[in-house]
Amino acid sequence: MILVNGRPLETVAANDRGLAYGDGVFRTLPIRDGMIAGWAWHLALLARDCQTLHLPMPTLDLLADEMRQCIAGIETGVAKITVTRGEGPRGYRIDPACAPTRILQATAGWPYQDAQLQQGIRLIRCRTQVTVQPALAGAKTLNRLDSVLARREWQDSQVFDGLMADQTGAWLETTMCSLFVEYQGALWLPDLAHAGVSGLSREVCLTCCRQLSIPVIMGRIDDNILANADAVMVANSLIGLVPVIDVEGQPYGLSARFQQLRAAWDRALAESTALRI
Amino acid sequence: MILVNGRPLETVAANDRGLAYGDGVFRTLPIRDGMIAGWAWHLALLARDCQTLHLPMPTLDLLADEMRQCIAGIETGVAKITVTRGEGPRGYRIDPACAPTRILQATAGWPYQDAQLQQGIRLIRCRTQVTVQPALAGAKTLNRLDSVLARREWQDSQVFDGLMADQTGAWLETTMCSLFVEYQGALWLPDLAHAGVSGLSREVCLTCCRQLSIPVIMGRIDDNILANADAVMVANSLIGLVPVIDVEGQPYGLSARFQQLRAAWDRALAESTALRI
Repeated sequence: MILVNGRPLETVAANDRGLAYGDGVFRTLPIRDGMIAGWAWHLALLARDCQTLHLPMPTLDLLADEMRQCIAGIETGVAKITVTRGEGPRGYRIDPACAPTRILQATAGWPYQDAQLQQGIRLIRCRTQVTVQPALAGAKTLNRLDSVLARREWQDSQVFDGLMADQTGAWLETTMCSLFVEYQGALWLPDLAHAGVSGLSREVCLTCCRQLSIPVIMGRIDDNILANADAVMVANSLIGLVPVIDVEGQPYGLSARFQQLRAAWDRALAESTALRI
Repeated sequence: MILVNGRPLETVAANDRGLAYGDGVFRTLPIRDGMIAGWAWHLALLARDCQTLHLPMPTLDLLADEMRQCIAGIETGVAKITVTRGEGPRGYRIDPACAPTRILQATAGWPYQDAQLQQGIRLIRCRTQVTVQPALAGAKTLNRLDSVLARREWQDSQVFDGLMADQTGAWLETTMCSLFVEYQGALWLPDLAHAGVSGLSREVCLTCCRQLSIPVIMGRIDDNILANADAVMVANSLIGLVPVIDVEGQPYGLSARFQQLRAAWDRALAESTALRI
């Protein structure tokens, strides 16, 4: 089901600035057991990204009401919230009369094989670089062409995702996941000060690392660190924390710390404020 | 009037990838005397940008037919062509079944004061940097948040546009125009190998400079060159070549070369293949 500004529509206005300029933000959320875990966390990140774009955030009650309508009757599936600047005249200038467009949608069915995710996934290294734009660093905006171009780089269904680096060769993320690297006793998170998407997974990871007293380093993950890592993991809101078993032929194992982290991760999400129908 | 895939609609599908990821390209075209000058040039650039995104280009006949319908009855106005990847399932992967969406639209009325453009315009220097993405450098895609954020930096209606630099401080363009700087006897065009939009204006400019034997340097326009320039000009498809008379208080004059270039410019467009109703 799709709700556009609360109405069951399949369309948006052709002059919406979300389409014209990618002037908006979005979040993707898992529906499991008929509910969305981490709902409050997602809304906090949506609010953060709206603020980055100076975009009015819809009220939390409104989003909850509308999302409940969308996910009603769906036991397992994927939901999405998009907030755009709304309809406006041509030109980059934001008309003060612009009212944001909310698009809430939910689809039944789970797009991933959970057994495969448990065992671990394979990555390639993408040639497409992460887009560099300090004013948008961390935010999940509708300007996602870097991920679209990077995703074109493989057709092999055995490859789950592709690593993406910035101009300097620092690995920042995959096309759809956050990247975590276990190296010399610490968990390394890429520094996203200038580029990349900082989503729920990084928040959950930091929370779990605090609980488990795992040292965290926010820094530059270069080829050397990647080559000598003890474990590589990726995560996003849909798949949770997943081990990487292979990066273009280089094998990685499932570390004890990964197992510990994943248990804490699942617990943190189970205990988070969920949206229920 | 708006035509979406040839049909008079005001809406596009909510799951269009143009909206979801900014997965598409666009062009803005002037309607003067009921026709679009430089039509063939525009289509060549649209085809170039479609190729950058590996996006099928609609046929030229189809675009001409549909644009004729859109501009019928409009003497003066602005037209726009958008081509998106089309409707598709969630996720960055491009479904091979994806069929591009064409959005053609035309609006009557001229949004600029031509007399003011003749005299010259004022610029500010924006703090928002140009987005850096080598794989998209030059292309006019729907990922335009850098221009949107930069355009928020001024409200003063006396300021026409804002200069934008890359991370290294090289001035590349304005939020909506190409930048040309007359310096030490040559016309300098910013190097857009890693970022920026290279539109019709740069093509027209290079053509005119060849005709007039004006030396062209494609290079780095830094603060020093800008401060010591003999003339600064901006251009886009709508406004043509326009002199800059002021950048945050630094005055610039109208050079002889500018006058010469503008005459050649107007001639080149008048002689170009136009679209007539």
